[in-house]
Amino acid sequence: MYRTNTCGELRIINKGTRVTLAGWVQTVRKFGAITFVDLRDRYGITQLLFGEELNKQLEQDPPGREFVLQATGIVNERSNKNPNLATGDIEISVQSFKILNKSVLPPFSIQDDTDGGDELRMKYRFLDLRRNTVKKNIELRYAVNRAARNYLHQQGFMDIETPFLIKSTPEGARDFVVPSRMNPGQFYALPQSPQTFKQLLMVSGYDRYYQIVKCFRDEDLRADRQPEFTQIDCEMAFVEQEDILDMFEGMIKFIFKEVKGIEYTETLPRMTWEDAMWNYGNDKPDTRFGMKVTNLNFPQQAFPGKQSPLGTVGSESPLRGAGGPFDDAETVLAIAIPGCSEYSRKQTDELTEWVKRPQLGMKGMVFIKINTDGTYKSSIDKFYNENRIKAIVAAARAEPGDLILILAGAEERTRKATSELRMEMAERLGLRKNTEFKLLWVLDFPLFEYNPEANRWVARHHPFTSPKPEQIDTMIHNNPVIQNASAYLDHPYAGIKANAYDMVLNGNEIGGGSIRIFQRELQEKMFAALGMDKEEQQHKFGFLLNAFGYGAPPHGGIAFGFDRLCAILGGSEIIRDFIAFPKNNSGRDVMLDAPSVIDDKQLEELNITIQRKNI
Amino acid sequence: MYRTNTCGELRIINKGTRVTLAGWVQTVRKFGAITFVDLRDRYGITQLLFGEELNKQLEQDPPGREFVLQATGIVNERSNKNPNLATGDIEISVQSFKILNKSVLPPFSIQDDTDGGDELRMKYRFLDLRRNTVKKNIELRYAVNRAARNYLHQQGFMDIETPFLIKSTPEGARDFVVPSRMNPGQFYALPQSPQTFKQLLMVSGYDRYYQIVKCFRDEDLRADRQPEFTQIDCEMAFVEQEDILDMFEGMIKFIFKEVKGIEYTETLPRMTWEDAMWNYGNDKPDTRFGMKVTNLNFPQQAFPGKQSPLGTVGSESPLRGAGGPFDDAETVLAIAIPGCSEYSRKQTDELTEWVKRPQLGMKGMVFIKINTDGTYKSSIDKFYNENRIKAIVAAARAEPGDLILILAGAEERTRKATSELRMEMAERLGLRKNTEFKLLWVLDFPLFEYNPEANRWVARHHPFTSPKPEQIDTMIHNNPVIQNASAYLDHPYAGIKANAYDMVLNGNEIGGGSIRIFQRELQEKMFAALGMDKEEQQHKFGFLLNAFGYGAPPHGGIAFGFDRLCAILGGSEIIRDFIAFPKNNSGRDVMLDAPSVIDDKQLEELNITIQRKNI
Repeated sequence: MYRTNTCGELRIINKGTRVTLAGWVQTVRKFGAITFVDLRDRYGITQLLFGEELNKQLEQDPPGREFVLQATGIVNERSNKNPNLATGDIEISVQSFKILNKSVLPPFSIQDDTDGGDELRMKYRFLDLRRNTVKKNIELRYAVNRAARNYLHQQGFMDIETPFLIKSTPEGARDFVVPSRMNPGQFYALPQSPQTFKQLLMVSGYDRYYQIVKCFRDEDLRADRQPEFTQIDCEMAFVEQEDILDMFEGMIKFIFKEVKGIEYTETLPRMTWEDAMWNYGNDKPDTRFGMKVTNLNFPQQAFPGKQSPLGTVGSESPLRGAGGPFDDAETVLAIAIPGCSEYSRKQTDELTEWVKRPQLGMKGMVFIKINTDGTYKSSIDKFYNENRIKAIVAAARAEPGDLILILAGAEERTRKATSELRMEMAERLGLRKNTEFKLLWVLDFPLFEYNPEANRWVARHHPFTSPKPEQIDTMIHNNPVIQNASAYLDHPYAGIKANAYDMVLNGNEIGGGSIRIFQRELQEKMFAALGMDKEEQQHKFGFLLNAFGYGAPPHGGIAFGFDRLCAILGGSEIIRDFIAFPKNNSGRDVMLDAPSVIDDKQLEELNITIQRKNI
Repeated sequence: MYRTNTCGELRIINKGTRVTLAGWVQTVRKFGAITFVDLRDRYGITQLLFGEELNKQLEQDPPGREFVLQATGIVNERSNKNPNLATGDIEISVQSFKILNKSVLPPFSIQDDTDGGDELRMKYRFLDLRRNTVKKNIELRYAVNRAARNYLHQQGFMDIETPFLIKSTPEGARDFVVPSRMNPGQFYALPQSPQTFKQLLMVSGYDRYYQIVKCFRDEDLRADRQPEFTQIDCEMAFVEQEDILDMFEGMIKFIFKEVKGIEYTETLPRMTWEDAMWNYGNDKPDTRFGMKVTNLNFPQQAFPGKQSPLGTVGSESPLRGAGGPFDDAETVLAIAIPGCSEYSRKQTDELTEWVKRPQLGMKGMVFIKINTDGTYKSSIDKFYNENRIKAIVAAARAEPGDLILILAGAEERTRKATSELRMEMAERLGLRKNTEFKLLWVLDFPLFEYNPEANRWVARHHPFTSPKPEQIDTMIHNNPVIQNASAYLDHPYAGIKANAYDMVLNGNEIGGGSIRIFQRELQEKMFAALGMDKEEQQHKFGFLLNAFGYGAPPHGGIAFGFDRLCAILGGSEIIRDFIAFPKNNSGRDVMLDAPSVIDDKQLEELNITIQRKNI
């Protein structure tokens, strides 16, 4: 061993002990004939003191930043104590030392606030990983991993490895594929998740399964999406939805306690998918703050049971018939921003530009300031009389001092933009605190979504999700084909809700799952609803349908996005910072320079050629 | 929840309790108006008693084998107790039941001794996994996983995930590659091991790393080789070989204690590579039994320091000059098989045929029986006088009652055949007990092997293994090029030993590792020795050489073959039985039918075409 102690453990109680440390040179400070070196390792920093004699030796071969140094000496009490350092009461009076390895000058400084840009730090990831901030993320990731495993073990779950070289069944995202040399012309696929395998394990009787496992999706990359990512993947047999919610509420609480020292005693709030969409404009609401969405006008068929607080929807609404901007709008949504009635014209203009960016694509934004004296000032004063404005203000539950922002347009786009605007305003108002954690369950998702291009259903969660038990008959006894595309919402399948659930933390879906279909007949009906004929079903999922014929138990599960969970627990939303060796936004590992070209010999052996024309 | 208890937990103490169980129907036994059903789940089997009334209901929709059944009733004491069953004192007097799912007749019986053949069980792996014997293997695998993690956690190791989509640097085995759609014409590779990443983590200061991780090798498959396999992968910084041996001796002992209840108190025996080759004919000796190899004649240059017990080697040996079969043999190896002197002609003939199989390729076999009265009977009586025979018997350390088997021929082939023969004889004599566990370290491997085709060196372990510290100068200051191919053993590199170590259990290498090169100059010299020019070094391993320039610490590690370790601990050598979803010997998943053809659209998107000519 090159050391007797780490650079993080020596204290005043060790005074007088002879120790050997090894680590990296953080700083070198010369004071006349003596030199101080801060030596760093994973565990901390310890100050080394080189006295007059050793100093001469040091000057012959002076260690620079990031040199690897081994030093032996006596633990002494410091004259100048450093209360910010765990080892700040002591220093090592060095008696002998050895430079174990040299370092050229690092391209950026190994400090919390580094001077290195993103691309440079990715290329030199092995140096970036030395920085304390990055190290804390990696340590937190391990702590979450460990806590999840310990909880699941206590609950009788078994970690069972599922294969990585599987069969390509593209459904939703694209598969990464792996040419098989031994089976020319054939390919394995990398799993997008162990979904079918964990279901097979339930059929096999392993009633509590988990895995912390890499998954792969060949998507067109967006910011902060990784082609490979990690899931905490879980499945249970002989359970109903309530059992899963209980179990994994327990897990997240255990993780919070172990990793963050936060005791969650209350039950997680639950929200239906409809309420989430209605009140927050999306299905993963950030509930650290209010500013709920007010639905002033909306297509009634989208939320058959919902009422606008304006009392009426459509042509009789106070929004209509005044020649204002809402006369023809399908959807009109408002949010009341607390304490922002004093926003200047410049500020509201800037916000208007913000919602008009191509990403959101709004045509404009209406505002109403509710002055602290109760009067109004709005961008629609010339169209709407005070009564109409009052009705809108009341509907939006705005208080004096608030600023109401109103967006209008086609339903989906307007809802998305309002939701984004809500998040943006919360960000600006400092309401998205990364030390506050708000969890909830979102439930009762629709089982299907409508795909207009193919005029058919797609599975909102995935094709293995069970409808609500009371709707199984509706699913079995109706033809999934949509005869009238314009009235797809009238099809019996449109109203089928799934036994599915998402766990949401601070506006992020951190986990999602469902009770699964376990009846062969129902599974075949589901595949048919998604446009698969018998042959395709058999080719892609024959093994699963087959397994369901041999006594499949009721089962369900959940998968947590491990990277994102770690990021949020670490107070960030940038998952890349919580992965030891991430890829960049183009899916490249810039450190390795991967992907890269391979030898012609390799291609030849794999029986494939590259279509040069496309390159 | 579909149950209040599992099928493995109810005891006499629960008598009178109302419970609900759910599981699979193992057996149905009718006795007149009552029926017994054995209900099975992961945890055990519980007997259900259907009385007269329910029996009628049962007969309307009779559950068959592997039906999924839910039953509610009262725990009662059995009249006919079954001491072989944990729940054998009780049964459930069923009050109500429900068939949760049906099963068609399974293609083989779900029993310890099943009637299903290998191929059938692989196709219906989800049913095979229900069998108790397979379940025990999967449970043992999880127990080993858990024990390894707990030990490593206690020792300060962190589980850090390394990427799966990396760069292809074929060296030794072939890489599986993954075409990149986003980077046309370029490929990722799947890791053969996280080797370079764990070394980078050491450079980054994460001085105790581990991972239980999938690795991939596109090899021509042999029996019981899997294209994807699992490693317990570990690395430490600021350590020497002795520290690694200590640490992982601790781990294997912890695993034995936790998983098998076996306390290993003694230090693991250590054996040099030379001694292993000399005494056992291979580098992973099975030390559950003796029957060491005796080197009667061998090429002196292979073991410069070793002496044959015949005293002399070569032309002056008692083996030579009698016109016998050994006159021209390069290598002559003997093993004394205890208690087999009574072997019949038929038996020795059969053994001779066994060594003449193409896999071993021996030309014949010589035997000497040492009768219990001390006389000899050999197949070479006509060539060798008694003195010569006596010398051979003494050299082979044979006792009266033993049978000496002697193989001769070219060195490598003869050594391999002798080693295999030793294992075969031990098997036949029942000396390879799967309840006995013999561990040892094999040390001091040669750093290089000679590749005659390329007339250059290859790394015996891998290109990152350090030579013994005292031989670094030899490596740095000599030209690795071999001028005289016939005298390659005289090259200074031939004698360089590695700081490498294998852990051997019952004749299997279960773990292997090395102290790594951490000096850029030495690493470049190693790559050069393996025939890589600067450009190739930079292209393949530039990131690592680069990292070594920024303060790499001394480090080393080890990787355990997790599948094999589990198999041996489970008393088997068939790793496939310890993998939930294994591939067959052709690398196929016969359950999924993978690999398989993929859509032309997928190929098009990936910019590749299949060379139809080769299919």
